[in-house]
Amino acid sequence: MSNLLTPKNRFMFSNRITHLFKIDFPIIQAGMIWASGWRLVSAVSNAGGLGIIGAGSMYPDVLREHIQKCKAATNKPFGVNLPLLYPDIDKHVQILIEEGVKIVFTSAGNPKTWTGILKEKGIAVVHVVSSSKFAIKAEAAGCDAVVAEGFEAGGHNGREETTTLVLIPAVANAVKIPVIAAGGIATGKQMLAAMVLGAEGVQMGSRFVASDEASSHLNFKNAVKCSGGRYTAFFKTTNSGSPFEE
Amino acid sequence: MSNLLTPKNRFMFSNRITHLFKIDFPIIQAGMIWASGWRLVSAVSNAGGLGIIGAGSMYPDVLREHIQKCKAATNKPFGVNLPLLYPDIDKHVQILIEEGVKIVFTSAGNPKTWTGILKEKGIAVVHVVSSSKFAIKAEAAGCDAVVAEGFEAGGHNGREETTTLVLIPAVANAVKIPVIAAGGIATGKQMLAAMVLGAEGVQMGSRFVASDEASSHLNFKNAVKCSGGRYTAFFKTTNSGSPFEE
Repeated sequence: MSNLLTPKNRFMFSNRITHLFKIDFPIIQAGMIWASGWRLVSAVSNAGGLGIIGAGSMYPDVLREHIQKCKAATNKPFGVNLPLLYPDIDKHVQILIEEGVKIVFTSAGNPKTWTGILKEKGIAVVHVVSSSKFAIKAEAAGCDAVVAEGFEAGGHNGREETTTLVLIPAVANAVKIPVIAAGGIATGKQMLAAMVLGAEGVQMGSRFVASDEASSHLNFKNAVKCSGGRYTAFFKTTNSGSPFEE
Repeated sequence: MSNLLTPKNRFMFSNRITHLFKIDFPIIQAGMIWASGWRLVSAVSNAGGLGIIGAGSMYPDVLREHIQKCKAATNKPFGVNLPLLYPDIDKHVQILIEEGVKIVFTSAGNPKTWTGILKEKGIAVVHVVSSSKFAIKAEAAGCDAVVAEGFEAGGHNGREETTTLVLIPAVANAVKIPVIAAGGIATGKQMLAAMVLGAEGVQMGSRFVASDEASSHLNFKNAVKCSGGRYTAFFKTTNSGSPFEE
């Protein structure tokens, strides 16, 4: 990817999101449980995007291991996604601070609870929202940016099912902090469309989940690669064991 | 709107959709049952877009009346939306042909059945689809264009719930005929995003349904104007009487 970084291209992609994270491209790899460990995260960050460790599927000691391995594998910025509803949240936050993580994406919870504590440690905090109302709350809580996650996105989604095409302009109008678009984005055209709608960056999951560096199972990667538009599914899972055999 | 039509702007909007319909802007007002009669349709067409009579809520004699009144109210092209599943479909088609309608949007049925018959009469036929698979069938049936209608759109939607952001590039890749995007589009930014994704025109409903010329009930117009992102609803209705008191 580095040959894309002519001075002109670097300027073209320069905005509040690239400045906030100190990255070359406003492309963020979504934190995905069971899929985004240190290998994927460091690969994305080394390529000029922002890799994000998905802490949602990691016990505290596993999270610490992935952060340490990621720091060894890249000198570039990377982040950790922290679902706030998880029982180990206190331990997770302690580890993030101890390990000097600089960027945290929080989701599935109230941004008021942790944003101030993280910001005091100099950590950039981005909260994932599914509506303008929650975006305004995240901004009021002191977040540096929001991920506006449309109905198309995976993970813990909003109940209102507002799609990316409708959500992004609404959120961009509602807050002054920069907006990262998520949901239904996998190509350059979709990225440009998101930015036309008011986003300054994109967060993508499925685009990365089938890559060599992702820790998803090979059968899952193949299923993603072979699927068409009609194969989106909603899952209820019970977690057992860890796929992070690294 | 006519003051927007400098030679430069006219060139900017010129594409296969403006050529197909002989219109100034690739903006199409969706045929909406109970809402898009001759007043709205002629107003949109007179402004340089394409107005479409929603035949779905009209008995054959009512449809004929609206076509005749529309022809009296505008010299510009307009169309009729024809849901193919309606019982009066034969009579509707006969009226379209007798009244010299030049543009027909078909939906909710197999495009094979009627496209050939309409095309023989010199009528441009556009079919509404919700997937690449149906777009390919519409192209094979001889349609001049397709409306790719995302999950966000009203009316008889696809079961796969593919959103506009995902559907438009998929359909634009699957067929050679031009694609009109529908669903979740109400602003210039959303129109530009749709065109970035590969559409050559947009079809909008809610954008027009609260206008003075729409025959929707005033309470409905006010509800649309005051609603936020979370007020989309799915309706099951039983029709009684006609709102077309014109």
